[in-house]
Amino acid sequence: MSELRKDPVTNTWVITLNDKDFAPAPGSNIPSDLPAHDPLCPFCTGNEEKSGREIQGVREKSGAWKVRVIPNNKPYLKVETQLKKQAKGFFDVISGTGANEVIIETPLHNVDFDNMPQEHVLDVINTYRDRINDLQKDMRMEYMLIFKNRGLRAGGINWHLHSQLMGMPVIPKKVQEEIDSAKVYFDYKSRCVYCDLIDHEISMKERVVKDTEFFTVITPFASQACFEMWIIPKKHSCHFHKLETAQAKDLALVLKDTIGRLNRALNRPSYNYMIHTAPIKAPDLGHYHWHIEILPRVKSIAGFEWGSGFYINPTLPEEAAAYLRGL
Amino acid sequence: MSELRKDPVTNTWVITLNDKDFAPAPGSNIPSDLPAHDPLCPFCTGNEEKSGREIQGVREKSGAWKVRVIPNNKPYLKVETQLKKQAKGFFDVISGTGANEVIIETPLHNVDFDNMPQEHVLDVINTYRDRINDLQKDMRMEYMLIFKNRGLRAGGINWHLHSQLMGMPVIPKKVQEEIDSAKVYFDYKSRCVYCDLIDHEISMKERVVKDTEFFTVITPFASQACFEMWIIPKKHSCHFHKLETAQAKDLALVLKDTIGRLNRALNRPSYNYMIHTAPIKAPDLGHYHWHIEILPRVKSIAGFEWGSGFYINPTLPEEAAAYLRGL
Repeated sequence: MSELRKDPVTNTWVITLNDKDFAPAPGSNIPSDLPAHDPLCPFCTGNEEKSGREIQGVREKSGAWKVRVIPNNKPYLKVETQLKKQAKGFFDVISGTGANEVIIETPLHNVDFDNMPQEHVLDVINTYRDRINDLQKDMRMEYMLIFKNRGLRAGGINWHLHSQLMGMPVIPKKVQEEIDSAKVYFDYKSRCVYCDLIDHEISMKERVVKDTEFFTVITPFASQACFEMWIIPKKHSCHFHKLETAQAKDLALVLKDTIGRLNRALNRPSYNYMIHTAPIKAPDLGHYHWHIEILPRVKSIAGFEWGSGFYINPTLPEEAAAYLRGL
Repeated sequence: MSELRKDPVTNTWVITLNDKDFAPAPGSNIPSDLPAHDPLCPFCTGNEEKSGREIQGVREKSGAWKVRVIPNNKPYLKVETQLKKQAKGFFDVISGTGANEVIIETPLHNVDFDNMPQEHVLDVINTYRDRINDLQKDMRMEYMLIFKNRGLRAGGINWHLHSQLMGMPVIPKKVQEEIDSAKVYFDYKSRCVYCDLIDHEISMKERVVKDTEFFTVITPFASQACFEMWIIPKKHSCHFHKLETAQAKDLALVLKDTIGRLNRALNRPSYNYMIHTAPIKAPDLGHYHWHIEILPRVKSIAGFEWGSGFYINPTLPEEAAAYLRGL
């Protein structure tokens, strides 16, 4: 029996089914037999020269790197391009100005967060934060999106663990929608919708995967994909890059744990994650709340989803959460 | 050199690159060696009993079927479910009430519109129209979306040519966004944005793929995918199902031609198409204009697109149009 569920933040509808079959589509998994070092991989040690100048890095005491940030070698947006907004006849155009960086998260070719020490995941989180803090000095940037494409079905073309940062001269539509919707809720209730959501989910328990001092991990009520998870900070804050030290340390553990559960549940599926945070120039917003959305890429986006903006999720989020909790 | 282009209807931004490489990703094409009849295919002749009762059909004089409409054997929404809208604690839920039909568009296993006679494509279009006219009698339906998933990367699991109709108790978010945006434009200019778009594109010529008595085919300025095309009727109308006879006949030719160009350009790629039409209960809207969006599925939707709602299109729509015109 299916039902239509509405996401309380974005008002997106999802058709939720109740399939018991959790098997990912073929070809969507990360191979289990990757070597620790691949001489052909531009992100592996020894190939640093191939990947261009290092923008930032975290190093061991020995001097060996743990995390490296490099420019995307085929950037979609470039810092060097002069920002120009113009009309092109009937249409609106902005020059391809922005930043497109790659965060190589480990020198090892064959690991994900679940196989890495907590301190190393913390280095990655701190690198995300530092890159935003650095890039926000460029006043042309309106938004910094950090995202990960892991595995072929998630658009990841290199198995070596990495994320990307895209600095943009406009605010992404999806984030703006969340902010606008959350503002409507705030104007009506004088409370943050994400704060209310966390309270509700913790009291209900059924969709909570993990609950720590600083973070709650849930399978959202209107999950757009099977085993989708959101990591939401308990303390209200609209900006990810204002993360405090104790929070960052906890987040490293939570990310490690969450990715580990996902990898065990779906046998290392392709997945994306995106950090949704307020626009860089926004003041502290009472109505918006940063969070991380983790999206396993198990099913194709077909014509129905493209045409409607609806999603079809074969698995009940309550069952997914129970399964993930049990791992 | 990339640029950000804004769609004039939805205000969605697309990062447009200028790659000359039109090659689709591996595994996205329709095989060229399919048999005309596959005894295992539930949509092929001889297997009619496997596919459930026929809701509607078009027949040759001999009695053999040309087009068949059947219920989806794994329906996402069901007509039999009683419509119930309710609060579920913090959340909103609607029962899975609706219609989910499959339109088998030919008895042959190995053809697409470009290999079919114009009259047969017209039978398909008339079937789409008739199904909407029939289902609109059910007052629980708010929207009827017709879409096609062709090929594995487009979510199509059977090569045999077919489309689907989803009758829904709510209006899809993407369509509502188009209507709302078009309304803002109409309130400001007192003209339909799609009518203005056609006029502009015909005068500019560079993005026009085909221009007939009743339809204009363009590669949209802010194409979300390489070789995306929109088929827009020249005569303003918000409802596809009010298509006139002469228009329908022309549309059959235009669809056949457009799909043919797409199949030649990208060597039979996976693709989706969606008919965007006004909600069934809406009166004749001056600000909305039905159209067909054709989306080749050549590239993955990665974390950037998911997280931002932006799209990255490697091919300039002007170059895509020139290439398609030349085929």
